[in-house]
Amino acid sequence: MKIQLNCDMGEGFGLWKMGNDELLMPHIDMANLACGFHASDPITMTKSVLLAKKHHVIIGAHPGYHDLEGFGRRSISHTKQEIKALVLYQIGALDAICKANDTEVSYVKPHGALYNDMMKNEDILDSIMEALSCYNQNIKLMILSTTNNDHYKNLAQSYGIELLFELFADRNYCDDGSLVPRLQSNAVIHDSKTITKRINDIKTHGYIKSINNQKLYLQSDTICVHGDNDNAVEFVQILKKVIE
Amino acid sequence: MKIQLNCDMGEGFGLWKMGNDELLMPHIDMANLACGFHASDPITMTKSVLLAKKHHVIIGAHPGYHDLEGFGRRSISHTKQEIKALVLYQIGALDAICKANDTEVSYVKPHGALYNDMMKNEDILDSIMEALSCYNQNIKLMILSTTNNDHYKNLAQSYGIELLFELFADRNYCDDGSLVPRLQSNAVIHDSKTITKRINDIKTHGYIKSINNQKLYLQSDTICVHGDNDNAVEFVQILKKVIE
Amino acid sequence: MKIQLNCDMGEGFGLWKMGNDELLMPHIDMANLACGFHASDPITMTKSVLLAKKHHVIIGAHPGYHDLEGFGRRSISHTKQEIKALVLYQIGALDAICKANDTEVSYVKPHGALYNDMMKNEDILDSIMEALSCYNQNIKLMILSTTNNDHYKNLAQSYGIELLFELFADRNYCDDGSLVPRLQSNAVIHDSKTITKRINDIKTHGYIKSINNQKLYLQSDTICVHGDNDNAVEFVQILKKVIE
Amino acid sequence: MKIQLNCDMGEGFGLWKMGNDELLMPHIDMANLACGFHASDPITMTKSVLLAKKHHVIIGAHPGYHDLEGFGRRSISHTKQEIKALVLYQIGALDAICKANDTEVSYVKPHGALYNDMMKNEDILDSIMEALSCYNQNIKLMILSTTNNDHYKNLAQSYGIELLFELFADRNYCDDGSLVPRLQSNAVIHDSKTITKRINDIKTHGYIKSINNQKLYLQSDTICVHGDNDNAVEFVQILKKVIE
Repeated sequence: MKIQLNCDMGEGFGLWKMGNDELLMPHIDMANLACGFHASDPITMTKSVLLAKKHHVIIGAHPGYHDLEGFGRRSISHTKQEIKALVLYQIGALDAICKANDTEVSYVKPHGALYNDMMKNEDILDSIMEALSCYNQNIKLMILSTTNNDHYKNLAQSYGIELLFELFADRNYCDDGSLVPRLQSNAVIHDSKTITKRINDIKTHGYIKSINNQKLYLQSDTICVHGDNDNAVEFVQILKKVIE
Repeated sequence: MKIQLNCDMGEGFGLWKMGNDELLMPHIDMANLACGFHASDPITMTKSVLLAKKHHVIIGAHPGYHDLEGFGRRSISHTKQEIKALVLYQIGALDAICKANDTEVSYVKPHGALYNDMMKNEDILDSIMEALSCYNQNIKLMILSTTNNDHYKNLAQSYGIELLFELFADRNYCDDGSLVPRLQSNAVIHDSKTITKRINDIKTHGYIKSINNQKLYLQSDTICVHGDNDNAVEFVQILKKVIE
Repeated sequence: MKIQLNCDMGEGFGLWKMGNDELLMPHIDMANLACGFHASDPITMTKSVLLAKKHHVIIGAHPGYHDLEGFGRRSISHTKQEIKALVLYQIGALDAICKANDTEVSYVKPHGALYNDMMKNEDILDSIMEALSCYNQNIKLMILSTTNNDHYKNLAQSYGIELLFELFADRNYCDDGSLVPRLQSNAVIHDSKTITKRINDIKTHGYIKSINNQKLYLQSDTICVHGDNDNAVEFVQILKKVIE
Repeated sequence: MKIQLNCDMGEGFGLWKMGNDELLMPHIDMANLACGFHASDPITMTKSVLLAKKHHVIIGAHPGYHDLEGFGRRSISHTKQEIKALVLYQIGALDAICKANDTEVSYVKPHGALYNDMMKNEDILDSIMEALSCYNQNIKLMILSTTNNDHYKNLAQSYGIELLFELFADRNYCDDGSLVPRLQSNAVIHDSKTITKRINDIKTHGYIKSINNQKLYLQSDTICVHGDNDNAVEFVQILKKVIE
C-alpha cells in the first residue's frame, strides 16, 4: 500500500498566518487541522476544511493542549478525564465544521507536547483512545511508529479503534525510536538530500537510521512533512516521487 | 402542552464556580450548557452533561462570543461566515462530549450578547440558522418569543429547522417585546411574588406586562429561569407549580 | 520641527510573526509596541524593546482591547473605569520591561478599535487621559490629527498631559477628517506614488485630500507608516526623504 | 518583630468570584494580588488595590504562569528570559494600577506552580530575582521558609534584593521542608485547632512538624492564610491573636 504524506495545516490564528497551506495542500494526502487550542479558530478551521476538500485531502483533527502562546509545545499536566474531554471537545468542534461542509474527520493526530506525552505516558494514550472509542470508532488514531507497534495495535484493538503509524522524514531519531526533542539543535533535519535518502532507506530497506547510526525498523502508513520551509512545495514533490 | 423550564448551566470556568447546578438540575427541564467561549471548559462541560443526563434534563448548547473576561455579554462584530463557524464549533464540541456519554444536543440557545444581537440583526440570526441547517436539522433553535413569532417560524422553515420560543420570567420587557437591557437598573426582577404573578398571567391570560404596563401576548414553549440567586431552588419549585 | 515616523511594531504573538520589525526599525523614529492584549506577549515585548533601543527609536505603548483573535480591531464595550484600568495595565507591563532594560515608555498610542473609539467617544478619550494623568504625566498621548486639534489640546491640558497629533500616510480620509473605516475597500492606499504625493501636499501646503477631494488642513507631529507590506522598507525611506 | 499575615487576594476573573476579600482584608497585613495571568483582570486588580489601600494592607504582586483554565497551578516550561519577562510584565501591570491610586507594589510572591518551581529550580528563582533586581530593588521577594534560608539570603544579596520568608499555616510539610503537593489528599489542613497549634509551636518553639512528625525549624517573616474557607474570617482572627 502506498505510504501517504501527512502535514500539519491550518495553524494560523486570527490575523496571524503560518505555513503555505494553499501551495502545499495540492501535494499532500492527509491534512492535520489545528482545532483552536494551540492554533486556529473557527473561521480558520472552516477555510482549512474547504481547502482540504477542494484538493481531495483526507482531514484529520490535530488537537493540542490549550496553549496558544506556547503553540501547544509545552506539556501541561492533566487528569485522564481532562485529556479525554479536551480531545473530544476539539474533535467535535472540527467534525461539526466538516459535517456542515459535507465532509468528515477521518483520523486524529495529537499535536506537539500532547503527541510526545501520549508516546511517553500510557495514561494519556489511554485517555485519547477512550475518547475516540466513545465518540466514533471509525476515526483512526495516528501515532509515532516505534519498534514495538504490536503493543500499540493490541491496545487500540481493546478500544475498538484502528491506528495509523507515522514516520518523520525531517526529524532525527534517538536509538530507542523516539524523536530527538525539539530543544536539541539536531532535532530537525533541514537538508533535503538527507531527508530524501532517509525516505529511500525506508522504502528500500524498511529502516531509518538513528542519530547513532542504529537501524530502526519502523513500519509506517504515513510520513509527516512540514510546510513551514521556504522550499516546502518542491521538497514535498520530491518526497512523493521517492514514495511512488 | 406543558411549558418547560430552561436554565443556563455549566457556567463555571476552571476553578471558578457559578450558579448552583447540583441543586437546580433536578428541578428544570432543559439545561443550556456553556461551550467554552464565554464560560466552561471541556472538563466542566463533561460534568455538566453527566449531571443533566442523571436528572433526565434535555441538553442544549449555549454558544456565545469568545469572551471569557466579559462572560459573553459584550457584542463583538463578526462576519456572517464567522458567526456560522463559531456556532458550529461550539455545538460540535458539546455534541462530541454528549455522544461520548450516550446523549446528545437537542437544541441551541445563543448566549448573552449573541442572543440579543440575533434578535436585533437578521444577518446574525441567518448565520445561526444556517449553521444548524448544515449540521443537524433535528437540533432546534431557541429564540425570544416576540409579538411576531410567525415571521421567525417562516424563516426557520426555510432553513428546515424548528424553533423554541422562550419567555423570561425574571426580566422586564420593553413595549416592543424586547428585553430591558441588562445595563438598566430595572432589567432583572428580583421579587419572586412579582415573577410568580407574571407567569400566572401568561398561563391564564396569555400575556406578560411590559414596563409601561402594555399587555404583550407572547406565545412560548419554555420559560427561562436563573440559577444564581440564593433562593433559586425554592423559586424554581414555585414556578413549576404555577406552570403545572 | 521635523515630522517623525511612527510604526506599529512587536505585533507577533507566541510563534506567530507579523511585520518586518528588524528591517524597519532602523528607519523609523517612534515604535508603537503591542502590549499583549491584541498582540505580543512578555518575551516578544522584551525583544521589541531591545530592538527599538538598539536603533535609538522612541518607545510608545500601543494598548488595545483584550482580543487576540480579532487583533484588537473589534470594538468591545467597556465602562470608563475598565478603559482606564486596561490602559494602565498595558502601559505598566511595557514600562516595567522598558525599565528593566534601562529605557522607558515615552508616549501611548491606543490600537485599532480602541483608537477609533477614542476619537468617536469622549468618555473613552477621557478615561485614557485620566490613566496617563494618574500614572505619569510625562507620557504623551498620540491621537488622530483633526480639523479641531485645539479642542483636544484643551482637554489634554486639563489632565496635565501633552498630545502628539498623527497623520496616516496610507489611509484615506472622509470629509470630516475621520479615517475611512477598514471594512471599506478604499480604506488603505497601496500605491506608494499617491502616498508620497499626499505627504508632499502636507509638507508643502499643510493639507491632505479627502476621498471627495476636500482639503483637510491637519497639523501633525508624526506620520504613521505600516510595516506589513513587501516593500515597506523602501517606502519608508522615500517618506523620510520627502519629510526631510 | 511581629509575624505578618499574608493572603492571596483578588483572585476573581471577569464575573467569577473567589474568596471573601471584603471580609478578610481588614484582618490581614499583606495582600498577594493576582495580576491577570492565572486570575484577575485590570478592573478586578483596580478594585483589589483600592480595597487593600482602604484597610492599610501592604500590596504584593502575585504573578503566575499564563493559565487561567488551570489557575496557574500547572507547571509550564519556560526559558529563563521568558520567566523574567512574564514576571516583569505582571509586576509592571499591577504597579501601574497601584501608582495611579497613590500606592505601590512592595513585594512579589510568585503564585502556584511558579512558586513551587521557583523553590525546586534555581534557574527560575534566578530569573525572578533578576527581574526584581532590574525593575526595582526595593520590591522584596517572598519565598518559602526552608531549613536553608541562608543560601537564599546570599543569592538575594547578590541581586541586591531582600527576601521575606513565609510559612504555611494550613499546609502540611514533607520532612525536607517542602510543601506536600496539592495533588495529595493531606496537602491542606482544614482543622482550625490543628492549625492554631502549629502556629503556637512556631511562636513558642520555633518549629513546625512535618507529616512524619519531624521538627522543622523554619524562620519566618510572614504566615500565609487562605481565604476561601467558610469560616476564614474567624480563623484569621484566631491566628492573629496567637501571633500577637
